[in-house]
Amino acid sequence: MADMCRWYIADGYLPSFSTGQLESHESLCVLNTTEQAAMLHLTVYFEDRSPIMGFRFNCPAKRTVHVRLDAVENDDGESIPRGVPYAMEIESTVPVVVQHSRMDTSQKALALFTTMGFSQ
Amino acid sequence: MADMCRWYIADGYLPSFSTGQLESHESLCVLNTTEQAAMLHLTVYFEDRSPIMGFRFNCPAKRTVHVRLDAVENDDGESIPRGVPYAMEIESTVPVVVQHSRMDTSQKALALFTTMGFSQ
Amino acid sequence: MADMCRWYIADGYLPSFSTGQLESHESLCVLNTTEQAAMLHLTVYFEDRSPIMGFRFNCPAKRTVHVRLDAVENDDGESIPRGVPYAMEIESTVPVVVQHSRMDTSQKALALFTTMGFSQ
Amino acid sequence: MADMCRWYIADGYLPSFSTGQLESHESLCVLNTTEQAAMLHLTVYFEDRSPIMGFRFNCPAKRTVHVRLDAVENDDGESIPRGVPYAMEIESTVPVVVQHSRMDTSQKALALFTTMGFSQ
Repeated sequence: MADMCRWYIADGYLPSFSTGQLESHESLCVLNTTEQAAMLHLTVYFEDRSPIMGFRFNCPAKRTVHVRLDAVENDDGESIPRGVPYAMEIESTVPVVVQHSRMDTSQKALALFTTMGFSQ
Repeated sequence: MADMCRWYIADGYLPSFSTGQLESHESLCVLNTTEQAAMLHLTVYFEDRSPIMGFRFNCPAKRTVHVRLDAVENDDGESIPRGVPYAMEIESTVPVVVQHSRMDTSQKALALFTTMGFSQ
Repeated sequence: MADMCRWYIADGYLPSFSTGQLESHESLCVLNTTEQAAMLHLTVYFEDRSPIMGFRFNCPAKRTVHVRLDAVENDDGESIPRGVPYAMEIESTVPVVVQHSRMDTSQKALALFTTMGFSQ
Repeated sequence: MADMCRWYIADGYLPSFSTGQLESHESLCVLNTTEQAAMLHLTVYFEDRSPIMGFRFNCPAKRTVHVRLDAVENDDGESIPRGVPYAMEIESTVPVVVQHSRMDTSQKALALFTTMGFSQ
């Protein structure tokens, strides 16, 4: 049974290009239906370098947060580079639901995808 | 094992803009294969305000309903605002399957995404 | 634990319109990694009428089948109408994996979505 | 409970056409958060011929790999043909997370989809 405190996303990618009014981006969407605030810790994995840790954010009790992954910054001021394949592990202090979506406007019009995270 | 009576969607968003003939919208799709009617209660969570409850709808026995989320109204006449990140919890009186989809036509052409809800 | 012999898809919809070379359609994709042929039975659920049964197809041992849902026909010669919300239950005689995808070309360009079925 | 060492994707398809700068393709995205390197073996299933085995790749400890499925080659020099429905089974020597995505640019603009693999 999923413990809902640890989630994984394998396909992360922030497109380098955008067209029109909408910027290519990804969002990590967290839902916390519990009575306690959730402290979340994001680890970002790469193909050819060590993971970057120390991305932290909160999701208050009975709230959702939709975190723009092109805007996060960790304790050392590092961010997720565009144009590079990555993956994510999300740890939460309380059970939450995690979903990941991408908007890609790198060619005219726009494309979307989403998936629930994997939790076990 | 999923009890199929409680479902979560973390990435809700009703785009503010549309192009062409098709309006940007989201649908909550419910399948009830049981012999009993399902009464469903939807709670909508936000980033910066208390959840809104009291959105109710039914899915008869051996039927599906595809609920337009831009059209739902709760007991107090409230609806889900466009252009605001939200999330959902769906409770059902009988086991059902819940899937969520978005159509986004805010730039020319259209984009779609879908995911099964998360249930545990 | 999913028994992999019964799958559900809640968001079925065959768009009425197409643009360009590619016809709007949906596919039900089945993977059978076992040594035995799978006999599959599809039941189609609607919002306002009784389910239609009797859609049958096979997936041989060690094969996949990608079934065009706009082309299936049941024992009574019925098919799935375009422009109508529906949902699906898929029963298999052996464990399989079921995934559902839509291609929508009803506005210029094309949109895709996919999801694993839900199995329990 | 998913063992995370065996994953399935039922809807594989490499579109034959591309428009614009971006080539239609699919990616198999693997996340290995363990301390041990993962050796992965991909089996490709078809509708009308025997499966092709012998596609091998690695995902180092604490790394992700995003494998372009239009570029893989097996021990016998075979690759996955474009324009043909297929499906996949992925076996790993250590627990990993597997996600599959498609980019389709066969009509103007581009479309994306993704899904977690199915694991049990």
